[in-house]
Amino acid sequence: MTGLKSETDTVASIAGKLVRSQGVTSPAGFRAAGIPAGIKASGRSDLALVFNEGPDFTAAGVFTRNKVKAAPVLWSQQVLTTGRLRAVVLNSGGANACTGAPGFQDAHRTAEEVASVLSNWGSETGAIEVAVCSTGLIGDRLPMDKLLPGVTEVVHELAGGISGGTDAAYAIMTTDTVPKQAAIHHADKWNVGGMAKGAGMLAPSLATMLSVITTDAVATAEQLDTALRAATRLSYDRLDVDGASSTNDTVLLLSSGASGVSPSQEDLDAAVLAVCDDLADQMMADAEGVTKRVKITVSGAVSEDEALVGARTVARDSLTKTALFGSDPNWGRVLAAIGIAPIELDPDRIAVSFNGNPVCIDGVGAPGAREVDLSGVDIAVTIDLGLGSGTATIRTTDLSHAYVEENSAYSS
Amino acid sequence: MTGLKSETDTVASIAGKLVRSQGVTSPAGFRAAGIPAGIKASGRSDLALVFNEGPDFTAAGVFTRNKVKAAPVLWSQQVLTTGRLRAVVLNSGGANACTGAPGFQDAHRTAEEVASVLSNWGSETGAIEVAVCSTGLIGDRLPMDKLLPGVTEVVHELAGGISGGTDAAYAIMTTDTVPKQAAIHHADKWNVGGMAKGAGMLAPSLATMLSVITTDAVATAEQLDTALRAATRLSYDRLDVDGASSTNDTVLLLSSGASGVSPSQEDLDAAVLAVCDDLADQMMADAEGVTKRVKITVSGAVSEDEALVGARTVARDSLTKTALFGSDPNWGRVLAAIGIAPIELDPDRIAVSFNGNPVCIDGVGAPGAREVDLSGVDIAVTIDLGLGSGTATIRTTDLSHAYVEENSAYSS
Repeated sequence: MTGLKSETDTVASIAGKLVRSQGVTSPAGFRAAGIPAGIKASGRSDLALVFNEGPDFTAAGVFTRNKVKAAPVLWSQQVLTTGRLRAVVLNSGGANACTGAPGFQDAHRTAEEVASVLSNWGSETGAIEVAVCSTGLIGDRLPMDKLLPGVTEVVHELAGGISGGTDAAYAIMTTDTVPKQAAIHHADKWNVGGMAKGAGMLAPSLATMLSVITTDAVATAEQLDTALRAATRLSYDRLDVDGASSTNDTVLLLSSGASGVSPSQEDLDAAVLAVCDDLADQMMADAEGVTKRVKITVSGAVSEDEALVGARTVARDSLTKTALFGSDPNWGRVLAAIGIAPIELDPDRIAVSFNGNPVCIDGVGAPGAREVDLSGVDIAVTIDLGLGSGTATIRTTDLSHAYVEENSAYSS
Repeated sequence: MTGLKSETDTVASIAGKLVRSQGVTSPAGFRAAGIPAGIKASGRSDLALVFNEGPDFTAAGVFTRNKVKAAPVLWSQQVLTTGRLRAVVLNSGGANACTGAPGFQDAHRTAEEVASVLSNWGSETGAIEVAVCSTGLIGDRLPMDKLLPGVTEVVHELAGGISGGTDAAYAIMTTDTVPKQAAIHHADKWNVGGMAKGAGMLAPSLATMLSVITTDAVATAEQLDTALRAATRLSYDRLDVDGASSTNDTVLLLSSGASGVSPSQEDLDAAVLAVCDDLADQMMADAEGVTKRVKITVSGAVSEDEALVGARTVARDSLTKTALFGSDPNWGRVLAAIGIAPIELDPDRIAVSFNGNPVCIDGVGAPGAREVDLSGVDIAVTIDLGLGSGTATIRTTDLSHAYVEENSAYSS
């Protein structure tokens, strides 16, 4: 399993196995589906549903911190105040952001349609039990004439097992090139599964990323909330591809309780973190235009918070990121970048290494620093401030031609 | 004259004319030179000297806020505590940053050499009267065996008139494609001239930019300091190409007093601002990989400070910048970017226009927004928050293939 093991020792101690072939339907009590509803002009799959059959319906959510929030975020935040969800409907092909009151009505209407079709189908559901997630271009209304008929179809396609979850994971993709799923089967007979999308605009506010995590563990909404916040803090919140934050970021955790097992908070936290951490790793590897998978670690900071600020500052530095694209061990750019981080540091104590090779010691270049080979895909940049014990790692990518290409042509 | 006229009304009221054909030797009492000393492997010009013949030697300086400061910055900051300068020696081809105590000794030794050669030449000078500026790759020692003999040569080349200043402006170029000079001849018979370099790593801390401004006005060091701080705040500090900040940024203002005219503080401020503002415009136009010259204005903020934070946040947003590279009026990215700025805003009141065409009104797309033509080189993005009267503009550029290309190959 990939993972930020130094920070998340609990991940290593899980009595279970992580697999990437299964997702939200891995835990008992969940069905899912994904279909092409005609929202995307390309005709690709664009509407997903994750359905909780119970017996429990506890849920928690974490949302974007962007002050400009999409309509589905405003709707789902409201829904989540109950700590209860029966279903999540997700669409790609349109963000339904910056669409005003009519856009909010569209999100509400979508939830109502899901509730109505599920109720007709024999599962009594209220709109207030349906979260809505959208992703795609900001600023356009959703084609409700296609989305609403799609809801009927996607409910009829609901399936358990591997296929339902995989179909859902495909339907939420935008510029992602592969679907992202992960599941943990715990030795104590309970499970956590999840899916995620997001390939650009990834930043501390979980930007343009949607993720649904499911579990058949028995857990209260409060326990789920605790587990989800702890997990996102160490996984999605430490993935920063371009510093951009979306209007639509949403991470949801739903429990069916179908395993009948009540794990300890610690075990639940660890399993949810392991799934989120693996999905974050998959998102980094599939980020827009990525040619390098980069982990920036700041150690020796006066606190974990300062280490995180430092690592994020370097992860966002365009000059560091273009140098890494060019496999160029230009460590001076790392020094220049960490120097503007609003944290405590002593320039004469900074040590930097690339993939374990020291390139800067006590703020001065190390012998052979310009010859370090960075031609591989994975690059670990470690910056030791030599002041304290605060450590944090940010996952990021290089800044490549492909990033520029993909993002200059996105809406055109 | 180009200029941020809405913020700098004083610029328009100067009783003088701005020209770009002259620089630091435009005011009386200054000589300058630029030569190839062999610091750059390419053999291009790389060593410049600006020499103040007096009768006054008052001076002021503004330096990078990066905590990792190059040796010449540490030296020049120390020198400037006296408020007095006879000369500035500048080299390209090496930043002399992250070079430790030996690097500081190199900067000190360079100042001593300049003082010694000037003294032998008949102008009694101490090392403490010589500022040192360096620019280039971070982390390598300067080739002192080439630099020191170059000092003798550059002193012998000192010349007034247009040619001396222009030679100096060429010698400080790194990835700049053109030298940058500006001068104002005031109707009251005093002058301000300047040169600058900087084509990347441009950011609020004046990153990798060097600028020397000269005047023959009679002014105390305190008056110069006031004028320089006011000018950099509105010009260089509002130029943000990639959010990166250098270890070497230095802006110096020297007065010879040779005109015998003592302008009011207000007139001095206006003239220094006009020169700095024009040089900032030239740097934006020549920024690394630029295909668009972009001005991001935030108006209607609760304060000027908040407007500035908002404009800077949008100016650093990779997704907005790549969209502009693609001439794509993707206004949703502007909304997503301003939404993460740590400032007061109401998403439902935001209005955005591109080159004067409304694309978003009250947080929702305006009719025809997707059809706005951004194919020209100049793009003005205006974001009205509708809350107060705070306004600020940041100059920036698009994020292009050429930016990635240039910066991935810089040190290789």
